[in-house]
Amino acid sequence: MPAPDAPRAVVLLSGGMDSATSAAIARDEGFALVTLAFDYGQRHRRELEAAQAVSAALGAIEHRVVSIDLRAFGGSALTDDIAVPHGRDIAGMGHDIPVTYVPGRNLIFLSFATAYAEISGADDIFLGITQEDYSGYPDCRQEFLDAFTQAANLATKAGTHDGRTLRFHAPLITLSKADIVRRGLALGVPFAQTWSCYEGGTIACGTCDSCQLRLKGFAEAGAVDPIPYAEGAS
Amino acid sequence: MPAPDAPRAVVLLSGGMDSATSAAIARDEGFALVTLAFDYGQRHRRELEAAQAVSAALGAIEHRVVSIDLRAFGGSALTDDIAVPHGRDIAGMGHDIPVTYVPGRNLIFLSFATAYAEISGADDIFLGITQEDYSGYPDCRQEFLDAFTQAANLATKAGTHDGRTLRFHAPLITLSKADIVRRGLALGVPFAQTWSCYEGGTIACGTCDSCQLRLKGFAEAGAVDPIPYAEGAS
Repeated sequence: MPAPDAPRAVVLLSGGMDSATSAAIARDEGFALVTLAFDYGQRHRRELEAAQAVSAALGAIEHRVVSIDLRAFGGSALTDDIAVPHGRDIAGMGHDIPVTYVPGRNLIFLSFATAYAEISGADDIFLGITQEDYSGYPDCRQEFLDAFTQAANLATKAGTHDGRTLRFHAPLITLSKADIVRRGLALGVPFAQTWSCYEGGTIACGTCDSCQLRLKGFAEAGAVDPIPYAEGAS
Repeated sequence: MPAPDAPRAVVLLSGGMDSATSAAIARDEGFALVTLAFDYGQRHRRELEAAQAVSAALGAIEHRVVSIDLRAFGGSALTDDIAVPHGRDIAGMGHDIPVTYVPGRNLIFLSFATAYAEISGADDIFLGITQEDYSGYPDCRQEFLDAFTQAANLATKAGTHDGRTLRFHAPLITLSKADIVRRGLALGVPFAQTWSCYEGGTIACGTCDSCQLRLKGFAEAGAVDPIPYAEGAS
């Protein structure tokens, strides 16, 4: 538990293993967590329950879910009727932008996180983006995060009038999935309560990009993924 | 009407006179308009009807309303139970951030505009911010817009992979309200269909900051504001 006077950090929780690990890192650094999840019409709504469970397990002092309307624009396999790819060769990933890219997603998420940070008195915002595994997503790169940090400070009363500086932390950005598993296990991340699968099922499919990367991460870390997978998946 | 092959521009419409004028400028520059309004729990919801009317009057090819959840965070007189100030000395405005400041608002709006631009194939985004009258809002300055432009291009497939460059235009940014009235009248802006009042009434109050600035702008331009005001106002 953080000290009663601990500084607050806004932590974006997707329900997945990466953001859960980033939350555990923030807690380990002494922050009191205020967590934020987004209901954006994603297929994998199961992740919203996971986000709440992870927030509670990590002792966050507040958890908010913001509903946003990305479906109004369409354009992604995560929100539309476009099929999520299965059984792709994940070794070849990272050069093209996958169909699961959601236009403007992290820009929108970070903008809400900025508003929440400003209002809740948090100067620090943690997010679980990684550029290794998902280098296909342009909004998961440090270069984007640096530019966003500048925009967020110029946009807000916090950054322009109150003498505060908003800082965006992506502690996993250079880590592999195996590194994240190791780090998460060391920090007591409740991996059993996380959800990574892109499909909306009740059991992870094991074959979408996200499941494959997760399973590979656990295997490389020499650990067992505590969540069940659909039969036939590894 | 724009040419059939006219490039598209996303135009943010608040329903007010500034964004309507910025839309008319985009049209005048030859863009086909796709307009975007936000339902963010504002008191002055009347502005959403105004945005739609302005969009139609200017011949936009598409109008979208995105619902967002700024009330989930609270913190502004425009979305909360904090009183909107009336009868303030608007000559003294511009040094402090007013209570009508909504944390992160333009950051969030521009992030959605970026997503919409990316999906609709528009490289140009127009917004009606002005730094003269509202210098109290940090997110209405060119400096913020420049930083946001960089972040938006780095965040998107459009800006990183597709050889597109997203451009954010704030054609009114250095104009006074009187300049905007003059420019708008020259371009045929349907001012009668715009709505500026911060209150949620059916007739503009005439005394909130926004009404005062509008009335002063029309007066200085030597023009008559075509909308009715509550008795005793102006």
